[in-house]
Amino acid sequence: MERIEHRACFGGWQDVYRHRSEVLGCDMTVGVYFPPQAEKGPCPVLYWLSGLTCTEQNFITKAGAQRYAAEHGIILVAPDTSPRGNDVADAEGYDLGKGAGFYVNATQEPWAKHYRMYDYIVDELPAWVEADPAASDARAISGHSMGGHGALTIALKNPGRYRSVSAFSPIVAPSQVPWGEKALAAYLGPDRAAWAQYDATELVKSATEKLPILIDQGQADEFLDAQLRPQLFQAACEAVDHPLLLRMQPGYDHSYYFIASFIGEHIAHHAAALRA
Amino acid sequence: MERIEHRACFGGWQDVYRHRSEVLGCDMTVGVYFPPQAEKGPCPVLYWLSGLTCTEQNFITKAGAQRYAAEHGIILVAPDTSPRGNDVADAEGYDLGKGAGFYVNATQEPWAKHYRMYDYIVDELPAWVEADPAASDARAISGHSMGGHGALTIALKNPGRYRSVSAFSPIVAPSQVPWGEKALAAYLGPDRAAWAQYDATELVKSATEKLPILIDQGQADEFLDAQLRPQLFQAACEAVDHPLLLRMQPGYDHSYYFIASFIGEHIAHHAAALRA
Repeated sequence: MERIEHRACFGGWQDVYRHRSEVLGCDMTVGVYFPPQAEKGPCPVLYWLSGLTCTEQNFITKAGAQRYAAEHGIILVAPDTSPRGNDVADAEGYDLGKGAGFYVNATQEPWAKHYRMYDYIVDELPAWVEADPAASDARAISGHSMGGHGALTIALKNPGRYRSVSAFSPIVAPSQVPWGEKALAAYLGPDRAAWAQYDATELVKSATEKLPILIDQGQADEFLDAQLRPQLFQAACEAVDHPLLLRMQPGYDHSYYFIASFIGEHIAHHAAALRA
Repeated sequence: MERIEHRACFGGWQDVYRHRSEVLGCDMTVGVYFPPQAEKGPCPVLYWLSGLTCTEQNFITKAGAQRYAAEHGIILVAPDTSPRGNDVADAEGYDLGKGAGFYVNATQEPWAKHYRMYDYIVDELPAWVEADPAASDARAISGHSMGGHGALTIALKNPGRYRSVSAFSPIVAPSQVPWGEKALAAYLGPDRAAWAQYDATELVKSATEKLPILIDQGQADEFLDAQLRPQLFQAACEAVDHPLLLRMQPGYDHSYYFIASFIGEHIAHHAAALRA
């Protein structure tokens, strides 16, 4: 493990680490914000999953989340969005391969060897984070777009593992939209039955834990109608009485200006659950 | 004039415009944040001058300033740091030419034709901004590093024009540090007497307006000892009893994580003067 960035920020430290992932078979970079409270004892952890094309840098430089994490005493962990390295498979286009891991365990070639982002986020990364005495095992999860999909599916598949979940502009039904159809077909193969385990709209139908879900979605989001379609998830939640607060935000688009505008409310949402 | 970005942000709008600068002889991009209050009547304006290598994007994507501007009802104007275009002179290295205009009016070739950032910031840009009925003529100015130098020198040279001034990690004595010596020699020629008009430590000695100055400086700033040397400015202010609050911030470096951590306090400082 190597610390490659270490910068004072809102009384705490915004760090970036490079660590070896055995699950992914490559080195990974991850942003970790330690609030000032982390010097005095273990703090709960919010995992943030970024969207297509992102690295660990987008969230830590653009969301302005550190201010709120410092207020509430929460560690922020922002991993990269795919395995990396010269020997890792890639594809043309921004929506498959590097920068587009979709938080699944791939079963198909050439992806199966490295593309195991689900296991990395659920198991290996928290184990690495929680080995630091500054981090407690109280976990929350959130993310944006592809990362919102990751946050919802991972929370729904792992009852009891996260205290709270939220998402910005998530891909809620990857089996029914072009981004998801392309990625899931590549990583999991053409049999759509295999896709349901990574589709929040499918997973919520059988969720055993009624963890309340907060979603913010910009109404001016350029991907709203073709790729995001939050109403599909809303209908599925209503059908099984799963608690969902879906807030359609007029005027907002898909950018980090949208995330910055509401990340404070999301962190307050997580803080209430993490500090309870 | 063309609006090239328009994104909802904290209840207002983060825009980017491309406009023709007659002073610079080229098209320029500029970020403008309109707080929600701008829909109801004219708002005061804080001009932000960025540092070496920056465009209008750095401040608007990384500082998190929109939250505070929305709280206080202040328009943020973030221009580019030099003239741009294929016919604009440039040099090797990040600290001269494009991205390094130093907020001066160049007198030397090949710079004199386009490098007139001082006139652009003092006159042309505010005239363009204030043609919008959303903007009042109540002005404040701030900036970072080279832009902190710009903010200090422009405020000191124009008594009555700005209600308040502040800076992060400013180059306070360009005549005495390598960045400044290189740039001022190129833009103004070898006669150091011509440099004093763009040197805050020289200008403050004869300032007729005792506008209070707020400066934040990170103690872990990698450029502190070689390029910034705020103690030179502090001594000059003390000698003429010019009001200066210089805050040395332990642990902070030269990055936008530092700016993000204290921009809220700077905007509150400006709001108090602008709204008075």
